[in-house]
Amino acid sequence: MRLEDVRSPQDIKGLSMEEMEGLARQIRETLVNTVAERGGHLASNLGVVELTLAIHRVFDMPRDRLVFDVGHQSYVHKLITGRYWRFHSLRSFGGISGFPKRGESEYDVFETGHASTAISAALGLARARDILGEDRNVVCVVGDGAMTGGMCYEALNDAGTSGTRLIVILNDNEMSISENVGALSRHLTDLRVSKGWTSTKKAVKSRLSKIPVVGKPIYRFIHLTKSMIKSAVIPEGFFTSLGFTYFGPIDGHQQASLEHTLRQAKNLDGPVVIHVLTQKGHGYDKAEQQPERFHGIPPFYVETGNAREQSRLPSFGQVMAEELVQLAQRDEHITAITAAMASGTGLDRFGRECPRRLIDVGIAEEHAVTLAAGMAAGGLRPYVAIYATFFQRAYDQLIHDVAMQRLPVVFLLDRAGLVGEDGATHHGVFDLAMALPVPGLTVLAPRDLQELRLMLRWTPQAEGPVLIRYGRKSTDLQARYPIRRFQPGRWEVLEAGEDCALLAVGSMVTTAVEVRDLLRRAGIRAAVVNCSTVKPLDTALLTAFADRPIFTLEEHVLTGGFGSAVTEALLADEMPPPRITFGLPDTFVQHGSRTQLLRYLGLRPEQLVRRIQAVLHTGEEADHG
Amino acid sequence: MRLEDVRSPQDIKGLSMEEMEGLARQIRETLVNTVAERGGHLASNLGVVELTLAIHRVFDMPRDRLVFDVGHQSYVHKLITGRYWRFHSLRSFGGISGFPKRGESEYDVFETGHASTAISAALGLARARDILGEDRNVVCVVGDGAMTGGMCYEALNDAGTSGTRLIVILNDNEMSISENVGALSRHLTDLRVSKGWTSTKKAVKSRLSKIPVVGKPIYRFIHLTKSMIKSAVIPEGFFTSLGFTYFGPIDGHQQASLEHTLRQAKNLDGPVVIHVLTQKGHGYDKAEQQPERFHGIPPFYVETGNAREQSRLPSFGQVMAEELVQLAQRDEHITAITAAMASGTGLDRFGRECPRRLIDVGIAEEHAVTLAAGMAAGGLRPYVAIYATFFQRAYDQLIHDVAMQRLPVVFLLDRAGLVGEDGATHHGVFDLAMALPVPGLTVLAPRDLQELRLMLRWTPQAEGPVLIRYGRKSTDLQARYPIRRFQPGRWEVLEAGEDCALLAVGSMVTTAVEVRDLLRRAGIRAAVVNCSTVKPLDTALLTAFADRPIFTLEEHVLTGGFGSAVTEALLADEMPPPRITFGLPDTFVQHGSRTQLLRYLGLRPEQLVRRIQAVLHTGEEADHG
Repeated sequence: MRLEDVRSPQDIKGLSMEEMEGLARQIRETLVNTVAERGGHLASNLGVVELTLAIHRVFDMPRDRLVFDVGHQSYVHKLITGRYWRFHSLRSFGGISGFPKRGESEYDVFETGHASTAISAALGLARARDILGEDRNVVCVVGDGAMTGGMCYEALNDAGTSGTRLIVILNDNEMSISENVGALSRHLTDLRVSKGWTSTKKAVKSRLSKIPVVGKPIYRFIHLTKSMIKSAVIPEGFFTSLGFTYFGPIDGHQQASLEHTLRQAKNLDGPVVIHVLTQKGHGYDKAEQQPERFHGIPPFYVETGNAREQSRLPSFGQVMAEELVQLAQRDEHITAITAAMASGTGLDRFGRECPRRLIDVGIAEEHAVTLAAGMAAGGLRPYVAIYATFFQRAYDQLIHDVAMQRLPVVFLLDRAGLVGEDGATHHGVFDLAMALPVPGLTVLAPRDLQELRLMLRWTPQAEGPVLIRYGRKSTDLQARYPIRRFQPGRWEVLEAGEDCALLAVGSMVTTAVEVRDLLRRAGIRAAVVNCSTVKPLDTALLTAFADRPIFTLEEHVLTGGFGSAVTEALLADEMPPPRITFGLPDTFVQHGSRTQLLRYLGLRPEQLVRRIQAVLHTGEEADHG
Repeated sequence: MRLEDVRSPQDIKGLSMEEMEGLARQIRETLVNTVAERGGHLASNLGVVELTLAIHRVFDMPRDRLVFDVGHQSYVHKLITGRYWRFHSLRSFGGISGFPKRGESEYDVFETGHASTAISAALGLARARDILGEDRNVVCVVGDGAMTGGMCYEALNDAGTSGTRLIVILNDNEMSISENVGALSRHLTDLRVSKGWTSTKKAVKSRLSKIPVVGKPIYRFIHLTKSMIKSAVIPEGFFTSLGFTYFGPIDGHQQASLEHTLRQAKNLDGPVVIHVLTQKGHGYDKAEQQPERFHGIPPFYVETGNAREQSRLPSFGQVMAEELVQLAQRDEHITAITAAMASGTGLDRFGRECPRRLIDVGIAEEHAVTLAAGMAAGGLRPYVAIYATFFQRAYDQLIHDVAMQRLPVVFLLDRAGLVGEDGATHHGVFDLAMALPVPGLTVLAPRDLQELRLMLRWTPQAEGPVLIRYGRKSTDLQARYPIRRFQPGRWEVLEAGEDCALLAVGSMVTTAVEVRDLLRRAGIRAAVVNCSTVKPLDTALLTAFADRPIFTLEEHVLTGGFGSAVTEALLADEMPPPRITFGLPDTFVQHGSRTQLLRYLGLRPEQLVRRIQAVLHTGEEADHG
């Protein structure tokens, strides 16, 4: 059967195992070619081809319900639920999302993006079914990484006691070492742990221990999972003690045995865990060899696996780590914490240089922040690097554990602003609204790489908590506007200009400079101010510029953001508020390239210039009127 | 030894066991008498008398470090760390806090208030010690309730792998059934589970199953804990599989055996769990009989245990539950979720009437919100009742799991605003700043009990998520301003008045009416508007009142709050902003009675009137100038 002819899961239910193999091959080809073109999550999708097909053959979606934890492994699901012909538009503006979207298909029943939510959501769907007296199966697929998040335990605890019919598939891809899977699956068809399993564990341990930094937490989790498994086959084991029936581990690339087990589980009452071993990147050698690199990847060449474009500048994260290593070499108090994102945040480098002082807590942002608070209370200077969107997980910990005690924790919020192709679940556009109301928190946003360096050099002297936000796309204004120092609470005037003032934060400083140049050509002289401290505001400088029309620019929702803070400050001093506060509207922004999204939102330089000109024009009339 | 002579833990180190008993008696007397006078947490403190004394005798605080989870069980600790003479001021304005405070004593090394943070914080302190090469013991005391929070698992997972020296005391007071403790402790001196234990488990189960609603989740946790214990004495058990050495269970009221076990644990390397059984309310019969009621209690009579003051009005929570029961009886889709606060939120009543439709998830706010999202995606109408301050735990889940999918979940935020005596960790003053930037969320605040009823009656028609915030102190304006219906997005004009307009939210509507009356006497006619929909604002009505000076009033931080939203809306329509936005300043507010705190913050009616008069006076001058 040709993949392009699969219009719904009904079409694959009658296929033979041989035909299924052919289909799996076509799916892998499509995945590799599309992601090579569009970028996206490759390794995880290659790992769940057979599993996804098995789920759709055994269950009856969308009457039955399927929830993917994190959701970036839903590409196979999309390909066989009527989205093959649109799949080439993956992650592009107006195209198919890289995550489940209810608006895209009735087969996407629950949207995900952040980790560890699926068991909670699936339990909700199951409870709804019970209360409404419906007859459906509810299935969720959760990776072993996501299982390190506390929400999973909260949900397992609740689900186990409820006794509700619910199928949790533990997609265990970290420890799927290809050469052992075959041997394992033979041993494990009777769902019991054998000696072969124990020896795999040892092999995994010795292999992983050789990987610096990343090795430890990965091994830790495997260790935990392994303990779970070992106890799970004992009556008092982990899942069973929580009220779950346990199946596994199953070879996740053996179509027939997967379907067999799913069918068994389907007939059971109460909550069930099926433990499936899959290999990240399965079927594409480059991804099998480097599953970390092919987890989320920009466009690449299929033959070599190399990236199509090399970025000219290092990322903010790389520069942050470089600088932090230097600080740490001079000061033993400096430590770094990551929530399973050592490589994404750049901290892997810190781990190589200062292995004892990098702590990876797993996908556990809440614990990461309170751990940092404890370390600071114990005299250290902890730096917590986290994506802005995931930082939403630790709002209470920021307020209650760090800020209330004025502990000197530094938060490094990467991917602040629009992240582009990952879309709504990943844009970091609420962080200022979260941070600005928190008493005693210093909030910073560097204009470029150099200013981030300078900010970091200042942080060891900070007396309370500090939050620094920076975007996915790095910027460099050093050639045009060299800076040598950073002073918290002091803004930087990049351009003088009497006709108006552009007050910009972070990524928007570069935009403001472009706007200024365009306005200059139109005969309007605009001052440009780099407002790198968002809290406290530089009210002295703000007052100095209040004699001309002010425009604020930020890559953040307008409600509770920088423009709002500037407005309040100006009004408090009885000065006129900004003429326009530019930022994101009160809506969730979907996926697309960052440039496309900014254009869609009217935030490209030429669009801003038109609106500024319109206002200045009206303003002059009013003045003369 | 007299308790009043204990100036530091050094003073009790040399006492005999008999003297210790005398001291414990004095402490219990002081606890009961002080809380009877001041209100506070009684049952939990009566339960940890011997445990706290044992910790301070075995360890060397403050060189060694002690962290209390939640912190409301730190009274005994306070009494013997130099605060006996100030203890009568417990929870009063300017007096001793009901929670650990670093500013109060060097013995309070980490501040707590919300649950499940202590293991993370203690692990941070332990890591700081290791990195700095210090020699200290780190001890944390965590209740079994707090253990249902996912953060605890995240921290145990991290601590267990780290191999760091850390002592976690599991203060297990839910299953401490007095008549069995003695028998147990005899069996358990060898740190092994005996048959006696199993029979206790059965006794607990049958007892708890009789308690409606609350019984189930409590039993669930005990079941989980029990499974942990059972497996913990097996090598592959729960704590040991996480890398912890396990001691217990120990009788928490036997001074000598407690100290013996703590000494053993102190000499061990690596992370240790000591499982201690304590009885809530131990030593005061009223509290032993009703530990739930004596958990957090307003002032009462020691002899009878009865409250000193009966409040005239029902609470917002009681009225909410009453109304929700009525809605649920007509509509099977209505369900309620609580995070271990059935009685605090009023939902215990809902549970009695609709037991199948009340879900208590334990202290797990994150899971509670995503579970609700799943239930809504499955066709139900879930209502999540949570204290405003604890809702900070679920910020990401609100955005990512509920709002992004526009799911019709209703959040009922109790204790919004200043809560009074519990202080900084418990004031619910960031919820509007959290909620207003969230796209598609309707944000409401009733002026009084009757409006809450009307709002609830409207919620089943809501098309997306709704958040309703209300305070600890209920209000009733029905006699003076009867209302019969609520329309979202429509404000209510309570008083006309041409000289100025008071736009007030929730609790501050009553204040605004008082202000209006005082202004009237001074010859100033103020309009009063009940702004019960905070998002979206009633811009039509706002425009209508923009012709006169506007004052906004809210019991919430000013940054990102209601006044800020009104300012933005007025400026967007090119109308003058409010003259004053009244609310909380950019600082953490400490404990005291709500009235004292409001006065301290300048938010009492007479204070507001003075500031309004001053502004109107200046305004007039400016007009005529």
